[in-house]
Amino acid sequence: MDSLHKLAEYFREFPGIGPRQARRFVYFLLTRNSSHLEDMARLILDIKKSIRICSSCFRFYPEGKADVCLICSDKNRDSGQLMIVSRDVDFESIEKSHVYNGLYFILGGTIPILEKEPEKKVRLKELKDKIKSNTPKEIILSLNITAEGENTAEFIRQFITSNFPDSNIKISILGRGLSTGSELEYVDAETIKSALENRS
Amino acid sequence: MDSLHKLAEYFREFPGIGPRQARRFVYFLLTRNSSHLEDMARLILDIKKSIRICSSCFRFYPEGKADVCLICSDKNRDSGQLMIVSRDVDFESIEKSHVYNGLYFILGGTIPILEKEPEKKVRLKELKDKIKSNTPKEIILSLNITAEGENTAEFIRQFITSNFPDSNIKISILGRGLSTGSELEYVDAETIKSALENRS
Amino acid sequence: MDSLHKLAEYFREFPGIGPRQARRFVYFLLTRNSSHLEDMARLILDIKKSIRICSSCFRFYPEGKADVCLICSDKNRDSGQLMIVSRDVDFESIEKSHVYNGLYFILGGTIPILEKEPEKKVRLKELKDKIKSNTPKEIILSLNITAEGENTAEFIRQFITSNFPDSNIKISILGRGLSTGSELEYVDAETIKSALENRS
Amino acid sequence: MDSLHKLAEYFREFPGIGPRQARRFVYFLLTRNSSHLEDMARLILDIKKSIRICSSCFRFYPEGKADVCLICSDKNRDSGQLMIVSRDVDFESIEKSHVYNGLYFILGGTIPILEKEPEKKVRLKELKDKIKSNTPKEIILSLNITAEGENTAEFIRQFITSNFPDSNIKISILGRGLSTGSELEYVDAETIKSALENRS
Repeated sequence: MDSLHKLAEYFREFPGIGPRQARRFVYFLLTRNSSHLEDMARLILDIKKSIRICSSCFRFYPEGKADVCLICSDKNRDSGQLMIVSRDVDFESIEKSHVYNGLYFILGGTIPILEKEPEKKVRLKELKDKIKSNTPKEIILSLNITAEGENTAEFIRQFITSNFPDSNIKISILGRGLSTGSELEYVDAETIKSALENRS
Repeated sequence: MDSLHKLAEYFREFPGIGPRQARRFVYFLLTRNSSHLEDMARLILDIKKSIRICSSCFRFYPEGKADVCLICSDKNRDSGQLMIVSRDVDFESIEKSHVYNGLYFILGGTIPILEKEPEKKVRLKELKDKIKSNTPKEIILSLNITAEGENTAEFIRQFITSNFPDSNIKISILGRGLSTGSELEYVDAETIKSALENRS
Repeated sequence: MDSLHKLAEYFREFPGIGPRQARRFVYFLLTRNSSHLEDMARLILDIKKSIRICSSCFRFYPEGKADVCLICSDKNRDSGQLMIVSRDVDFESIEKSHVYNGLYFILGGTIPILEKEPEKKVRLKELKDKIKSNTPKEIILSLNITAEGENTAEFIRQFITSNFPDSNIKISILGRGLSTGSELEYVDAETIKSALENRS
Repeated sequence: MDSLHKLAEYFREFPGIGPRQARRFVYFLLTRNSSHLEDMARLILDIKKSIRICSSCFRFYPEGKADVCLICSDKNRDSGQLMIVSRDVDFESIEKSHVYNGLYFILGGTIPILEKEPEKKVRLKELKDKIKSNTPKEIILSLNITAEGENTAEFIRQFITSNFPDSNIKISILGRGLSTGSELEYVDAETIKSALENRS
């Protein structure tokens, strides 16, 4: 296989990219100048050296040489709150909203319904260690409101209560209700129920 | 204009229907048998006689000959709660969720931002009369989380407080948060803020 | 069932209409005035009297009291050409393009692949009679370029050749090639082949 | 800016990629092993060395060290036919259909309507040289059936006839008609016209 098709194969593995768009990426790169390509290749080559996984929250972070990320080492964050999210993109979404000042833990995935080996899908041992060492007062489960997200939330809740039976950790989940853009005509009963309970 | 095109013109005024689909409706009717068409024509002819507007909540209701609908006359509903919705479809959506047991008031529309004559868009006089005669303890504003819905909610809130300044009516709005299907990666900051505040 | 829901059920049978939109249609009618509803009901009631099926081409036509439609009785149309289409909407699409001056025959449907009783899906006997009485020089099969459309075209072609083995009728199909809006990047090989053969 | 965001910026320039997907690409790469990243970086670094632009048809080609690509140097291709396409993806689409055995010329772009400097958008000088040296019998304009594609086709046609007024080159365009998937109900008059003329 020639390098055009080889590179297209690499792009094809990217999330959401089909064969046609992968090839278009290669043609696009062919129109860039050499220094552009060199910079990009260098970044890809070094990405795993310049980006580390925080040993405390397990998110990817780029800020420095320390073992823990700037959020985990920030004394102004409320260490009594621990928010559990599935992936880095979820963490980013929360952090960008500037409404949460506690700490995070990245599960690294979700647990499909009827999954037999959940410990292979998410960081369970690391979560246990984290709770043991951090002793948060509240754990906030921030998972998608999808079948797999809700299954993950339920699994993690049981995992925590069975592993820390005598603790007083409060386990909460994000509130449900109408989202921006919701139109009552199309909203499901479950959401209306929550929206009514959470009215303010 | 022949009757095929005339009837298509009528269908074209239906919400969400373009000229092509309107014509397809007519061709569809042409394949029905005569008694089917007679039944349908009869229903259209009589719809305004058999469906009334409730003089209390202003929703369309088909149940009987009384002046008020079965919900407004139901002694088991909590008359201390009054939910204000924009249209009948919103009322239906709430009622179908079986989580609300109070009364309703149908505004009949929404108020666009910067609208100069809001009283022409929604039933303001009727709302005032309703509150005066009903004296609810709580009014729940159930409007869409859209620019126009939020504008309507804010207008109605001010309309009530300025018309009933000495009352103790609690005015609430439906709670915001994650809806069924919400994925954190795509949720806006406003919704995350509410979801975090409403965590449980 | 009350008349609101009864009428919604009728609308729900319309092509492409779901339960929610069906109900919205009823609410829409409830906002119309009575004379509007009377006109509409009248049109529905009379549609089968005012619209007839042409005894020659089998299309619905509204023009008059004659047994055949204005196109079939038009001496200026070329009776040597007979175009076979599936439905009235296809006939309309062709006629609106003002490029065809022959006669038509409406099959009334299409023939699914592996269909065991094709004679129940399309007007075969009527087609045979039409060809017998009309003796066209050319028959143009104008079917959709879909699996079912192509199956229908192939079936009709064989039906004609086996029923009129000694005739000199030329049977043609609409030319294939690039349509308005076609982008070469997304065009399939079959279409490129035809477009290349039909280049001009 | 850290390397995560820097690399995301590079991906963001890719055709059709927004900021969120760009970041997801980086997170995806962070989950690959180092040798995978090294291979990919190497391919990007070398892509312009391993892929050349054919000096005859101007397409990108990866096959070897020669100055012209395997198609241009293939004695079995019909050098009497020259197909002009806009981009490499269009060339690929045609070539994949295995129905064309002539030569190609890649314009490198399209000419927007009212463009004042068309010579900056497409390879005009190179096209002139190509025709001069190749002396094809037929030039096939294979452009998209879009406003910009048709404008480009018209411009190139005039460019050729004014530059080679005494030649006998036949200039053709791909045939128009029904494409795979076309439904007559939705087809425009222009396409029906062509489909009828090209019937077979």
